[in-house]
Amino acid sequence: MNAKKYVYFFGDGRAEGSARMKSLLGSKGANLAEMVNIGIPVPPGFTISTEACTHYYANDGGYPDGLEDEIDENLARLEESTEKWFGDAKNPLLLSVRSGAAISMPGMMDTVLNIGLNDESAVGIAKMSGNERFVYDSYRRFVQMFGNVVLGMEHSDFEQILEEKKRLRGVTMDTELDSDDLKDLVSRYRELVEKETGEAFPDDPKEQLKMTIDAVFESWNTDRAKTYRNLNNIPHDLGTGVNVQVMVFGNMGADSGTGVCFTRDPATGENIFYGEYLLNAQGEDVVAGLRTPETLDHLKDEMPGIYGELSAIREKLERHYRDVQDMEFTIESGTLYMLQTRTGKRTAQAAVKTAVDLMEEGLIDKETAILRVEPDQLDQLLHPMIDPKATVDVLAKGLAASPGAAVGKVVFSSHKALEWVEKDEKEKVILVRLETSPDDVGGMAASQGILTARGGMTSHAAIVGRGMGKCCVVGCNEIDVDGKANRFTVGDIVVNEGDYITLDGTKGEVILGITDLVEPEMTGDFETLIGWASRAKRLGVRTNADTPHDSEVARNFGAEGIGLCRTEHMFFGEERLPIVQQMILACDEASRRNALDKLMPMQKEDFKGIFEVMKDLPVTIRLLDPPLHEFLPKTEEDIREAASRMNTGVDELKSIIQNLHEVNPMLGHRGCRLGITYPEIYEMQVQAIFEAACELAAERDGHRVIPEIMIPLVGHINELRFTKERLVETAGAVMGRYGTEIEYLVGTMIEVPRAAVTADEIATEAEFFSFGTNDLTQMTFGFSRDDVGKFLPFYVKEGILASDPFVTIDQTGVGKLIEMGVTKGRSTKPDLQIGICGEHGGNPASVEFCHRTGLDYVSCSPFRIPIAILAAAQAAVKERDG
Amino acid sequence: MNAKKYVYFFGDGRAEGSARMKSLLGSKGANLAEMVNIGIPVPPGFTISTEACTHYYANDGGYPDGLEDEIDENLARLEESTEKWFGDAKNPLLLSVRSGAAISMPGMMDTVLNIGLNDESAVGIAKMSGNERFVYDSYRRFVQMFGNVVLGMEHSDFEQILEEKKRLRGVTMDTELDSDDLKDLVSRYRELVEKETGEAFPDDPKEQLKMTIDAVFESWNTDRAKTYRNLNNIPHDLGTGVNVQVMVFGNMGADSGTGVCFTRDPATGENIFYGEYLLNAQGEDVVAGLRTPETLDHLKDEMPGIYGELSAIREKLERHYRDVQDMEFTIESGTLYMLQTRTGKRTAQAAVKTAVDLMEEGLIDKETAILRVEPDQLDQLLHPMIDPKATVDVLAKGLAASPGAAVGKVVFSSHKALEWVEKDEKEKVILVRLETSPDDVGGMAASQGILTARGGMTSHAAIVGRGMGKCCVVGCNEIDVDGKANRFTVGDIVVNEGDYITLDGTKGEVILGITDLVEPEMTGDFETLIGWASRAKRLGVRTNADTPHDSEVARNFGAEGIGLCRTEHMFFGEERLPIVQQMILACDEASRRNALDKLMPMQKEDFKGIFEVMKDLPVTIRLLDPPLHEFLPKTEEDIREAASRMNTGVDELKSIIQNLHEVNPMLGHRGCRLGITYPEIYEMQVQAIFEAACELAAERDGHRVIPEIMIPLVGHINELRFTKERLVETAGAVMGRYGTEIEYLVGTMIEVPRAAVTADEIATEAEFFSFGTNDLTQMTFGFSRDDVGKFLPFYVKEGILASDPFVTIDQTGVGKLIEMGVTKGRSTKPDLQIGICGEHGGNPASVEFCHRTGLDYVSCSPFRIPIAILAAAQAAVKERDG
Repeated sequence: MNAKKYVYFFGDGRAEGSARMKSLLGSKGANLAEMVNIGIPVPPGFTISTEACTHYYANDGGYPDGLEDEIDENLARLEESTEKWFGDAKNPLLLSVRSGAAISMPGMMDTVLNIGLNDESAVGIAKMSGNERFVYDSYRRFVQMFGNVVLGMEHSDFEQILEEKKRLRGVTMDTELDSDDLKDLVSRYRELVEKETGEAFPDDPKEQLKMTIDAVFESWNTDRAKTYRNLNNIPHDLGTGVNVQVMVFGNMGADSGTGVCFTRDPATGENIFYGEYLLNAQGEDVVAGLRTPETLDHLKDEMPGIYGELSAIREKLERHYRDVQDMEFTIESGTLYMLQTRTGKRTAQAAVKTAVDLMEEGLIDKETAILRVEPDQLDQLLHPMIDPKATVDVLAKGLAASPGAAVGKVVFSSHKALEWVEKDEKEKVILVRLETSPDDVGGMAASQGILTARGGMTSHAAIVGRGMGKCCVVGCNEIDVDGKANRFTVGDIVVNEGDYITLDGTKGEVILGITDLVEPEMTGDFETLIGWASRAKRLGVRTNADTPHDSEVARNFGAEGIGLCRTEHMFFGEERLPIVQQMILACDEASRRNALDKLMPMQKEDFKGIFEVMKDLPVTIRLLDPPLHEFLPKTEEDIREAASRMNTGVDELKSIIQNLHEVNPMLGHRGCRLGITYPEIYEMQVQAIFEAACELAAERDGHRVIPEIMIPLVGHINELRFTKERLVETAGAVMGRYGTEIEYLVGTMIEVPRAAVTADEIATEAEFFSFGTNDLTQMTFGFSRDDVGKFLPFYVKEGILASDPFVTIDQTGVGKLIEMGVTKGRSTKPDLQIGICGEHGGNPASVEFCHRTGLDYVSCSPFRIPIAILAAAQAAVKERDG
Repeated sequence: MNAKKYVYFFGDGRAEGSARMKSLLGSKGANLAEMVNIGIPVPPGFTISTEACTHYYANDGGYPDGLEDEIDENLARLEESTEKWFGDAKNPLLLSVRSGAAISMPGMMDTVLNIGLNDESAVGIAKMSGNERFVYDSYRRFVQMFGNVVLGMEHSDFEQILEEKKRLRGVTMDTELDSDDLKDLVSRYRELVEKETGEAFPDDPKEQLKMTIDAVFESWNTDRAKTYRNLNNIPHDLGTGVNVQVMVFGNMGADSGTGVCFTRDPATGENIFYGEYLLNAQGEDVVAGLRTPETLDHLKDEMPGIYGELSAIREKLERHYRDVQDMEFTIESGTLYMLQTRTGKRTAQAAVKTAVDLMEEGLIDKETAILRVEPDQLDQLLHPMIDPKATVDVLAKGLAASPGAAVGKVVFSSHKALEWVEKDEKEKVILVRLETSPDDVGGMAASQGILTARGGMTSHAAIVGRGMGKCCVVGCNEIDVDGKANRFTVGDIVVNEGDYITLDGTKGEVILGITDLVEPEMTGDFETLIGWASRAKRLGVRTNADTPHDSEVARNFGAEGIGLCRTEHMFFGEERLPIVQQMILACDEASRRNALDKLMPMQKEDFKGIFEVMKDLPVTIRLLDPPLHEFLPKTEEDIREAASRMNTGVDELKSIIQNLHEVNPMLGHRGCRLGITYPEIYEMQVQAIFEAACELAAERDGHRVIPEIMIPLVGHINELRFTKERLVETAGAVMGRYGTEIEYLVGTMIEVPRAAVTADEIATEAEFFSFGTNDLTQMTFGFSRDDVGKFLPFYVKEGILASDPFVTIDQTGVGKLIEMGVTKGRSTKPDLQIGICGEHGGNPASVEFCHRTGLDYVSCSPFRIPIAILAAAQAAVKERDG
């Protein structure tokens, strides 16, 4: 009887696994096997399956029967294949161990290199390689890595010994230590291990391997990994695979090297072979950005044979995987090995271009192309660019690491970036660093853009910048950064902290001073992709817009109507605010009507402008929503000014403002509550809407205006009934006066929990619902959006909430109320039109939720329209694919 | 073939209807028939059924076939019975018409008297009665009543003519007009009718009758009546009955009179014959309170025969109806007629005494006794009384119209009462009036008590005061009210607006100045009834209490535990607030812990006190809930004082206060959000709870402490998980330290809508739920309780909301979330203990809702415990009775 198989060999042109076995072998292991199977040179190795890991957890850390034998057998195959022997003193085999789950997961142990080293084997390798320093540097790193990752010791305890050594030797760089120093460090490290763990450092290579495999298994269940899985709804019983592979070294001399490459340019998507490498280096050196790597063009010149081999692999892998690949390779003494291939991360621009190109090259179909771009990523394309008409004076050039343009004040530390932005949220800063580290992430997020003097396209700054969609220029060697003096210089030019610069992340340019930026447009591949998406989606996409300009921008991006026009935005403005204030301060209906009469023609003109742009498309107009005191002056100075303008005493005005003050304005006298207690306000607004519509219909023949009038903050059917009755009356009177019939709808926001709960009743009077998910989230959670800063960040950090519910709809809670609203509403009125306004309308996960819940449309801000369209298309494609 | 019967005759000792036919005949008609059937003297008449009314509405105002013939036939029977002839010139029959639905309803037309009068019949009656002035006074009233009620004219238009007449004649009272004046008025009134309606006043008695019957039908569907039915869930298709009855006159001379009597004292419930009457008067005169009526003792002396007859009727009706009756009678020239009998309205004291007495007299069983008292009415018995030990100096005596005692500043208008209380909600006022009218209702509600100089026990002030449970003294002839000068005098003593007086509504006394009041106790009949109720109910009744004193009061009233102990109430107090402020202002955890360490022993003592009183009963303790800034000083002066106490700069303190300020504190950093971000606060509280419990267990052998610890404002399962984990740890540590095992529960408030929606998840961690219906109502409606004043009164007035949802649970909306919370919670944990705290726990309709929804207990303030017990018992009895 054969025992269950837990180990899968790959190497010598044949692998037991394949790319389809990701859940069994993990992503990394499956791709290694796949590469071997299609003839790519990969150092041989084997993958211990995720089933072994789940067995390990189900049995208190016990291995399944036969696993140890399987490992031994595969180890023997590796020895046979390489003709090196694990634990041998003269010709020892060294191994790497890497974890690899089906879904990549931060917090899991990643890599231990050089397993098999001990005092004996080190001597053997030193002899064989003739490079003693390299061997003891590797040995010291191995002890530290093993001590930290496998034995759970503090990284910094080892660093302390290293720092002490450097101080004693009077040097500052690790590379300045010689092999004797490193030998000494090895023995000190080993002493530290014995002191801390109470046991000697394991010399037996088999024991080293076993302990490392156990550590990989254990790393599946660290708190951080568990939290990550909880937050991302990843089942806890998937387990991780373990990849054990023969070590190859890129740092064996001038004919060795290591690099990273992409089948296409990850920044632009251009179909060029893109990559970087360092000769005589280890993989970590490329990523850390300590040395600026060479491009592949250089490799082509230096090692044409290797370059040709790599180019063929590029071609083969991309055709095979039908997507851009991100590959790691090592050249060991003139021989090329591939260590990893995976789907390449890319900028939005690259993602769009690649998706369209691959479709046009016939590698993928339109549906796949639609799924290939993360909707949220498009935000990068919707960033401002430098005005093409602007004359720019380029100060320096670096690598164009992340596109877009940014203007801001220079700061030289993340700390300062955060401090300035916290002090004034409108402050715009640009972070300038020699290079960035994980400590800078907060400061990078707070900045408009990032500029570094060192590092390549795969340096920390470049990767993080692209991930954040921040404009980023890296490797700008021309600038000389003096972080202590808070300045940088380019030749004679000194740029001090607080000086303005402009970055062009698309071209890699640094420009002195403030440069004009322009809003993005949708053209080329972007337009093509969004065109495909528009045809694939089922959900309508409307915009939130209050001006003709915003309406036009949105329509150009593909908006199919206005889902939310906030009429109160028309109440601000220098000319109007005094009249609005006069209306609020009116002591009786007659003088209130007097002020409203002055406002009416203004609102009418606003509506005409919007109706004009939105020809033949629905325009959802929300009647006045915020509490009246929002329109009153707030500062002492403004109050004085307003009082003198209105011929009122300052104290009297203050007392009126005090009277309008509310303890919880969010839950106060606003929305339809205002419209009910002061019906003349809504009456004016409805009059303005219908006069605008009637006049436009008369002026422009065949111009269809479709107003959908929305009552805010309805919680009880009677509120809607009361306002609707008067609204219909006013609308009828206006239309009668003009002799024009305008087709219109009357509906309501569903934003108060009670409205969702009683949606069946409310639907009897409503012709449409629009979920106001901002307020619905506030009231369902009992979170005041203005005040959550004191605890919500903590909640998200601690995993109490998976994400900010104001960004992504909380499907478990708020989502349940939305589902209830939809089901109950349609139970009364099966053809009830239902949409969502509020910022969730442009959030991809929320858009998918809206699709699944059967909404008719989402509405979002103009610059998120393409994102919503793509997200809606993906939801439709996924639904079709089951 | 017989047509359907629509008219039911009563009179001459026999009636076609009975008391069981209320839905067909209306309440008034059914009781008139019943009285006739059991041999009570009632003027003969007939009732047109409610079916005729519904037919009228179903057929655009058409009468059913045969109805007119039936009316004619019954009219003929009346003529035969009285030997008077409807429309006859010499011996005319006059009729009254009264509406009467199954449920009495304000806004419906009530009464038209003297139908059948015209210029001819007036002459006939004047001759027969020999009293011309009386006839023309009746005639003038008839034209006005008919014009107003039947023809829809303005009452004031008639009044204007009357006022003009009086001015011309130089008199001030109607009674000073002579019969010629009245004759002239009749003709002017008739002219007005013709001018306004375009038609002459109908002289034909049959036409008068037909028009009046139609008007009664029409009055069923006035806007006011419809709104009332909507608000009270009364079906619109019940219809009203119409009672047509022979007129009898109490104003025919000294051997005539009219009165109102109760089978028992409606104020005290004492089994004495209680009533008032006026000789030579009409019914309206008694109710209006213009003349102070005589008591029945007086009738006994003056007309012993009539009195004996009335006494026998009293006995008969009460035994027959098995409840206290409120009867109207008229004596016409020495003959007694009963015009109405109905269940007598009574004070709480009377209701309780009557229910217990009737049960003990064997007339009703315990379940019926429980149903006989409106739970809300008990509030009257839970009002303060004058301290028996106080020496009081009685200024004047009036009628003890509504029990309880009140202290307040004298005001002389409802307007002023409202104004003062609105300005300062703690202001206590007493409304002093000559007599009250419906315009005074608002001012009466705002006052602590009401004092009138005129009127009897059935005057407007007395009826309304009793209904509101307000202390009320009426008919206090000794006081001389000068409303214009804002003062009243008793002899030499002048009491000005703003002076304090004390009222004793139980004794009818007016006392100068402020008198000490004492809290009520539950004794005698009250205790008996609540004892019966306690045994009949299923729902538990707990109390909201934060001090040992409140806990004791509640336990004495029958509380079965504490459902809500608000720990933050222990944070106030002169000694503690500075420490709490120190805790809030702490800039790190260590100094916060330092302050908490000082608070801990104080909280521990509080808990010990409460646990001691609540021996063997559960004590639900809510951990800190309100936002921290509530504990900080608010006024400039307090800030200065606090700053100097804390050795802090005033500006620094102000800036901290400013930092803690929230836009919407209701939805801010409070509840478990505080407990999560500052875990040391809850840790201190839990430590105090368990140290108190352990110490008490050690000090008092066998004293069982049952803490139920409640986490406030949970919206997400993870919030509960986070706090519970730490709580259980702290509790365990304390119990370990004392070596004592305390049985306890950990549960959560369900007050955030999201908690109700995700109750199935939350129940996995909660051992009990307690619905915090105050906050749940705020968030479900999106109503800030502090700010609703601007629109909620308008909503209730306009019928947009049937009632204030902070008083009675909104069953359609908030109630649905509660039901969802119960169902979902129990789906996870079938034996989940579920209660409700928040003020709805003492509201009878809400208690009934809680019973139906399957809650385990309600919790309310100590003085509402008996109300909740009675309401819970009624819910159980009603459920049993189906």
